[in-house]
Amino acid sequence: MHKAEIIAIGDELLSGDVENTTTPFIIDQIRSLGYDLIRATTVGDETDRIARAVQGALGAAEIVILTGGLGPTPDDITREALAKAIDSPLEFRPELWLEIQQLFEQRGKSTPPANINQAYLPYHAQAVPNSVGTACGIIVEHHEAAIIVLPGPPHELRRMWLDLVQPYLERRYPANSLDRQQRRVFKIYGIGESDVMERLRRLLDATRETGVGFGFYPRAGEVHITIKAVGAEHETRALLDHLSVSLQNLLGTDLYGMGEDTLPAITGALLKEQHQTVATAESCTGGLAAHYLTDVPGSSDYFRGGIVAYNSEIKEKLLGVNKETIDNFGVVSEQTAMAMAAGARTALEADFGIATTGIAGPAGCTPELPVGTVYAGLATPDGQSASKIFLPRMSRGLIKTMASKKAIDLLRRYLIDH
Amino acid sequence: MHKAEIIAIGDELLSGDVENTTTPFIIDQIRSLGYDLIRATTVGDETDRIARAVQGALGAAEIVILTGGLGPTPDDITREALAKAIDSPLEFRPELWLEIQQLFEQRGKSTPPANINQAYLPYHAQAVPNSVGTACGIIVEHHEAAIIVLPGPPHELRRMWLDLVQPYLERRYPANSLDRQQRRVFKIYGIGESDVMERLRRLLDATRETGVGFGFYPRAGEVHITIKAVGAEHETRALLDHLSVSLQNLLGTDLYGMGEDTLPAITGALLKEQHQTVATAESCTGGLAAHYLTDVPGSSDYFRGGIVAYNSEIKEKLLGVNKETIDNFGVVSEQTAMAMAAGARTALEADFGIATTGIAGPAGCTPELPVGTVYAGLATPDGQSASKIFLPRMSRGLIKTMASKKAIDLLRRYLIDH
Repeated sequence: MHKAEIIAIGDELLSGDVENTTTPFIIDQIRSLGYDLIRATTVGDETDRIARAVQGALGAAEIVILTGGLGPTPDDITREALAKAIDSPLEFRPELWLEIQQLFEQRGKSTPPANINQAYLPYHAQAVPNSVGTACGIIVEHHEAAIIVLPGPPHELRRMWLDLVQPYLERRYPANSLDRQQRRVFKIYGIGESDVMERLRRLLDATRETGVGFGFYPRAGEVHITIKAVGAEHETRALLDHLSVSLQNLLGTDLYGMGEDTLPAITGALLKEQHQTVATAESCTGGLAAHYLTDVPGSSDYFRGGIVAYNSEIKEKLLGVNKETIDNFGVVSEQTAMAMAAGARTALEADFGIATTGIAGPAGCTPELPVGTVYAGLATPDGQSASKIFLPRMSRGLIKTMASKKAIDLLRRYLIDH
Repeated sequence: MHKAEIIAIGDELLSGDVENTTTPFIIDQIRSLGYDLIRATTVGDETDRIARAVQGALGAAEIVILTGGLGPTPDDITREALAKAIDSPLEFRPELWLEIQQLFEQRGKSTPPANINQAYLPYHAQAVPNSVGTACGIIVEHHEAAIIVLPGPPHELRRMWLDLVQPYLERRYPANSLDRQQRRVFKIYGIGESDVMERLRRLLDATRETGVGFGFYPRAGEVHITIKAVGAEHETRALLDHLSVSLQNLLGTDLYGMGEDTLPAITGALLKEQHQTVATAESCTGGLAAHYLTDVPGSSDYFRGGIVAYNSEIKEKLLGVNKETIDNFGVVSEQTAMAMAAGARTALEADFGIATTGIAGPAGCTPELPVGTVYAGLATPDGQSASKIFLPRMSRGLIKTMASKKAIDLLRRYLIDH
């Protein structure tokens, strides 16, 4: 089995936000190509440390993937570090410099002088064209190994990997098809990790000797199950198909989807199928439920719109919630959640309305209504319902997330049952 | 300088979502403690590979931090791997089992049998109490090194680190205060990475020999600059204060904040200071601008609410946009963006209205209005304005993000100038 190692470069990956890391994408690609991933490492922007990491990887793996540090700024030192690691000087490539200048011209801008650094590659290296950005990638073959360097921005890296790097690797390091891994992800909303485990206990026992790997991951109110199998494609596919059916039986409607499915996308697909529309009325989630629904391409087919009513006046004025309802039961109550959902349905002329009202914190709580108290409401052509969830000790962001999912899930379950 | 290594454990970190990684947090902590971080590695859920990674780290570092794999499910094998790595068998700790059962009792649930695994620790290991979850952490001193194991969920790990691990490390591995790193992050909206670089070129040249490290990171329409300095605290602080002033002068209002600041939080603080309120009218951003604004604790002081108008009827009915405006100029136009902003201001009785209308794609575009065409609108007591941005080749999610930020930034700049 060909061995691979990933080295992600960048202080920012080591110190702050990770939203831009592409390592998981590459890992997935490497596994589906049938290679053995021996390590994923992150190193900061220091030439010597990067060079040593590359040399270490070359001693252990045939395929070394480097990401990041190909930009025009002084902290972009991957080219220098690579040249040092393989003792191959950087040389100026006029054709790359021309391409960079053309790209800026297309954008109607003049080329900043600093970008000339991006036209330097180690001797003998091939450039990997980047159709989206200014940083080309690099492939260097070094003894039996290949070092592949790609720019950090995810949309650039993905495009270059799929178009150019993957075909290169398949040709240069063909893998035994029996080593290729297949992976499926199952997504659950409504029950916790321990409960999922209990429901699957017999299935897990039964598959213990089959070499199938299960992973369980709690994700902001959801549980994701990963099932992996290695082997000949038709056999692993049949095995995974069989397990999918078992999971569906054991988990019922708590299993909302697979793979890239999301709760809003699945709910949207049900709405579309049933030619129905939805509108939102949000208090504590402040627009997040609408954002989730509209993150789905094509959601304009079924999403009418939403109202974020952050205070009582607006709830009364725009959603038609009775002042008496608020006075008698409180803003954070089952009754107000139902009235808001009904109000969204009417004001936005939708078949369904969903609503949230609660205490996202850190302020605004009372002894009776601690931070994390949330009501989700659903209005349907048949009437209204509401559901309470209590999310103690959670951050404001997590409470907004969980409350939005709860409201969307109320609608999903209704659409399945009716 | 004490050397440290981080090993993050979990297939999920290697294959899918990274929102749950705590490595950046730990890296930051390790650097502020004055240790030398030699590597951050991620390994999957395989006992042998984890054990080998731990042994490798013990050969190179005195402080080895392991995260994840302490849960109750069969893929949680960090305890076993650790026992194997240091050749120290797991033993049952009745007091831990009691605590786990008490935690479930508090939550009104019965303890799932699988959780008993969490009561096993290597011989001689100390338990690190977890006040939030069922997985306790582990500290094992092994020859001159300390291995610290913490559960994966970020809110559990952070609490345990700050309360218990940090004081332990400060006592066990006191660092030279001259090695402690200070880091500041500066956040810019409105100009690109190359332009930021050009404006700072002379400052960068002037600081080249001072040992200060600059990093430049593009982040969805923003540029973040990181400045790091190592040394005696009062000296590095003075140096960083001085550089902060220089950056403020060079970047003006394009520099919107520092550290944990966000565009919505800074805009919200300006609103609060000026006793003004805002409302949103969103088309293509579908609630995201309202979500950003309400992610800020205390935003109910100045955020009145919002209307997500996903089709023309709703824009007319709830926002009072004239049918003629839409017919003459189109839904995606400067005029409609201004009318929507004005409508939000009126309907929600706010001092300011901000609005977005555009094509988030992938469908809905025309030759005149390609995907990524967005207008952001601002309504103030003095009148309306709108601004076009064009975001070609970007995903739906990124277009929503960039458009929301643009609308919020229009308001921020107005509040600064008036």
